[in-house]
Amino acid sequence: MADKPQNSAGLRGQSAGTTALCTVGKTGSGLTYRGFDIKELAEKAKFEEVAYLLLKGKLPNQDELDHYIAKLKSLRGLPSALKNVLEEIPKDAHPMDVMRTGASMLGNLETEESFGEQEDVADRLLAVLPSIICYWYRFSHDGVRINTETDDASVGGHFLHMLRDKPASELHARVMNVSLILYAEHEFNASTFTARVCASTLSDMHSCVTGAIGSLRGPLHGGANEAAMAMIENWTSPEEAEREMLGMLKRKEKIMGFGHAIYRDSDPRNAIIKHWSKKLADDVGDSVLYPVSERCEEVMWREKKLFCNADFFHASAYHFMDIPTKLFTPIFVMSRLTGWAAHVFEQRENNRIIRPSADYTGPEKSEWVPIEARD
Amino acid sequence: MADKPQNSAGLRGQSAGTTALCTVGKTGSGLTYRGFDIKELAEKAKFEEVAYLLLKGKLPNQDELDHYIAKLKSLRGLPSALKNVLEEIPKDAHPMDVMRTGASMLGNLETEESFGEQEDVADRLLAVLPSIICYWYRFSHDGVRINTETDDASVGGHFLHMLRDKPASELHARVMNVSLILYAEHEFNASTFTARVCASTLSDMHSCVTGAIGSLRGPLHGGANEAAMAMIENWTSPEEAEREMLGMLKRKEKIMGFGHAIYRDSDPRNAIIKHWSKKLADDVGDSVLYPVSERCEEVMWREKKLFCNADFFHASAYHFMDIPTKLFTPIFVMSRLTGWAAHVFEQRENNRIIRPSADYTGPEKSEWVPIEARD
Repeated sequence: MADKPQNSAGLRGQSAGTTALCTVGKTGSGLTYRGFDIKELAEKAKFEEVAYLLLKGKLPNQDELDHYIAKLKSLRGLPSALKNVLEEIPKDAHPMDVMRTGASMLGNLETEESFGEQEDVADRLLAVLPSIICYWYRFSHDGVRINTETDDASVGGHFLHMLRDKPASELHARVMNVSLILYAEHEFNASTFTARVCASTLSDMHSCVTGAIGSLRGPLHGGANEAAMAMIENWTSPEEAEREMLGMLKRKEKIMGFGHAIYRDSDPRNAIIKHWSKKLADDVGDSVLYPVSERCEEVMWREKKLFCNADFFHASAYHFMDIPTKLFTPIFVMSRLTGWAAHVFEQRENNRIIRPSADYTGPEKSEWVPIEARD
Repeated sequence: MADKPQNSAGLRGQSAGTTALCTVGKTGSGLTYRGFDIKELAEKAKFEEVAYLLLKGKLPNQDELDHYIAKLKSLRGLPSALKNVLEEIPKDAHPMDVMRTGASMLGNLETEESFGEQEDVADRLLAVLPSIICYWYRFSHDGVRINTETDDASVGGHFLHMLRDKPASELHARVMNVSLILYAEHEFNASTFTARVCASTLSDMHSCVTGAIGSLRGPLHGGANEAAMAMIENWTSPEEAEREMLGMLKRKEKIMGFGHAIYRDSDPRNAIIKHWSKKLADDVGDSVLYPVSERCEEVMWREKKLFCNADFFHASAYHFMDIPTKLFTPIFVMSRLTGWAAHVFEQRENNRIIRPSADYTGPEKSEWVPIEARD
């Protein structure tokens, strides 16, 4: 028993259930959604098509996709009670707290009364989460009450449009599309597992999603692209980046955006987002942030054999699109909602309450001492 | 591998970490908090003393307890932004959605900026959760804006006072005290495990608690006392209860409030709350609900060898105190907050991100088909 706590730490490598949604690192570096390679999806699919694949179990035909996109477009509006709640949240709040509260509040107003409603509830959340974060952001930062019911064709375009009061360029909409696909699903990561534990009590979808947002908020999970941005934006040349990074490594400081709990050789999402970060760098005429990012990649590989994960080049890509750093993790939420909800569906279909055991390390028996006799 | 999903279902019996807080069913029927037997705590302790034991690691002396109670009393007020949010939540909302949203909203207003604040954040939640649910309940149901800053000595008394606009009787305050002690902590149950998974990403306390509330909302977890009440309130005599129960058993209907995932022979909390339910029955002159409840206990043991768990006699006890059935599970939250927070402290002290694996059951490889060629 002495070894058990160590072995079971973080449940690493232990199966906590079954899924047909995703494989992570089966060949050391691969990622598939329902058997489709992430590279192919990122190249050929719309995010809404991937959402459909995850949530409905198959790729849609043209008619189904058209209807699905139209449905999502129709679900972007915010109930007035939810707007009032978002207006009560101060400007300096953590944006993930806003997302968590917005999703939770929606559960009061549009409660999932039975599991028969689960697909509609998931679609509604998929459509409305960008509205929630942008409504709060624009109200608290710019003092404007935006109309969240835009006519943009895509989730990513809708988000960028609300953020800047103008429709996104084709390039930006394309990069958002790719980004949302890359972040959509990743097996039993901590936020998805949170959603499944919650689902296993047969709780409602809003509870599952609210809990998952709370877990994604943690710096060991969803915050890596923000942390990467905070690091690289300080450096003005590849040489400075290399010098500073070597210093950080020497001082054993944590460097975010590299390595992965499951992948061994590379993160298949990195080459994809790196490609688009380069396109955006060319588009804005950047000669600093992208070269700095590339140098960071070289140094970490040379010094530590650590590869960039999905988060690292997302930092520069989002930055080139003028997205405020504090909204990076909320974008992750907009995307991963699809994976969370699909996992909730799966958990409900073949459920047993998730209730592990613990190794007890406390006192065998404590003797009650009357309060007047206590030290 | 074929058997693996079955073996690992719900992680039953698998260790997911260490704890010094609690043992459940170590002798088949025991329950201890930090080594103290639940019977002794329920007989001799104040709930605030048990909260101190769980959160600070030892029983307080008189001076420490006095200060702790005074601290909790001083933390009962609601920020105006939180009141405004609660006023936006409709009367027909699920009270657990209200608790979840209230806890989440508080995280926007009083964010835990570092783990050094964790004890204060937990104490604040312990003090303010009863205010959150009662403020919403009284506003939405009675149209009044209550003052949540009462002078009641105990958490339970504070709750009853806000609910009815008058201080609780000694008997009622005593029963609430016992009830809150019984529900305070229960090892790696699903809501506590949710809190630990969230904590393992190094997320903040409000996220952990918000997620835990969402899990406790599930009918397989926190809703059993409400379900028991909904059942027994229909029956007007022990004979009717027996007849109806036998019918339910014959029809294989789920009967809530009996049996337990871990305990084998009995739930140690049952004898305690049953004793107090009887006292309350005598106090109100009940000659129906308590005899009905006792008959249910007899029938389930005789027919199925299933014992009452903590929830079953809580139903009648709360009912005798005139607590609306829909507030039963929120009381569970007010109590279990102590266990959740103590587990978050533990997880943070020796953390590894909780990230299990899954058994993949989906397609090995899916071939991309262009959308125009799909069925």
